[in-house]
Amino acid sequence: MATTAPRPADTTSHGYISDKDRYLTRLRRIEGQARGIHRMIDEDTYCIDILTQISAITSALNKVALGLVDDHLNHCVSRAINDGDTHEAEAKIKEASAAIARLVRS
Amino acid sequence: MATTAPRPADTTSHGYISDKDRYLTRLRRIEGQARGIHRMIDEDTYCIDILTQISAITSALNKVALGLVDDHLNHCVSRAINDGDTHEAEAKIKEASAAIARLVRS
Amino acid sequence: MATTAPRPADTTSHGYISDKDRYLTRLRRIEGQARGIHRMIDEDTYCIDILTQISAITSALNKVALGLVDDHLNHCVSRAINDGDTHEAEAKIKEASAAIARLVRS
Amino acid sequence: MATTAPRPADTTSHGYISDKDRYLTRLRRIEGQARGIHRMIDEDTYCIDILTQISAITSALNKVALGLVDDHLNHCVSRAINDGDTHEAEAKIKEASAAIARLVRS
Repeated sequence: MATTAPRPADTTSHGYISDKDRYLTRLRRIEGQARGIHRMIDEDTYCIDILTQISAITSALNKVALGLVDDHLNHCVSRAINDGDTHEAEAKIKEASAAIARLVRS
Repeated sequence: MATTAPRPADTTSHGYISDKDRYLTRLRRIEGQARGIHRMIDEDTYCIDILTQISAITSALNKVALGLVDDHLNHCVSRAINDGDTHEAEAKIKEASAAIARLVRS
Repeated sequence: MATTAPRPADTTSHGYISDKDRYLTRLRRIEGQARGIHRMIDEDTYCIDILTQISAITSALNKVALGLVDDHLNHCVSRAINDGDTHEAEAKIKEASAAIARLVRS
Repeated sequence: MATTAPRPADTTSHGYISDKDRYLTRLRRIEGQARGIHRMIDEDTYCIDILTQISAITSALNKVALGLVDDHLNHCVSRAINDGDTHEAEAKIKEASAAIARLVRS
């Protein structure tokens, strides 16, 4: 795992909490897709068929990521702005923009 | 899993076979990363930290995919061309181009 | 050009206005890069060298886009939230998320 | 422009030559799109509408790039393999894989 020390979770502020079950279901599916690709390689499956599954899992990950970005903007960023905490709002937006840049380039 | 019926594996022709253990290790790590993201969501981790991990796993998947494309070109495509089987070679290249397009757009 | 009817420009609210000259300079450079690729094709340049230039111009476009997203969040979205206009703020965030999704998939 | 010294063009071997007019037309259109985005910024157009156009031009560039990759595989790579020049073929494939990696990450 990339070595970013997760911040203490102030659970009330995370946008995705209200949608948590759906995210957990999607992550379990993605984990299953990764296991499936491992099995395809283990069973010497044709490389193009493996590439098809890798594109499918990458698209699934992108959907999760785009949902989290939307939740972050609608909750974490909005909350900080609503609280009138300009410094915190700018920090939350800066974090969002950096995460979006990583997504566009990964 | 996307529902493409994997073709019967003619194991001798797959380029990645010689590198299979390395691919299996990377897929196990990717599976672990997916499990890690599931756990982060389950533990209400801050969304930006989850997004960082999603970009890390997407990059890892891209590396696997790019390796498979290179192996496919060096083995499956080269073999078909060397065998003088123009039809088969064109089919292999067409498959490679379609897989590359999916990668660029996923 | 994609046929989205540009909304009437309320210039005061666009985040990028304060950085307009820099954006205009970058777009002129991108236009020059496109012209350069046209010339490479016209002069029968080796395909791999053309592909290198296409990746360079795509990266330049991504940088402009990520800048505009950041400006949009810092200005258009923040302004709507600060104005207490929840409906407008949600609309601005929805637009931002859709634009980010297009970027990730283009 | 990225500073790669274009190789002397051996025009007969480039796959795209037979499709040159179509590529030139698409590049002229892309150049026009870049000019259009410059004008949108100059006219203080709403940022989201500019982002829509940037995604459109990035997609157009990707299509050109994917076409060039396919042409490169079908002509430059196939020719080198057909000529029995293993070293040249491996070099052409290596170049293709590097170009594909840049595309996936740009």
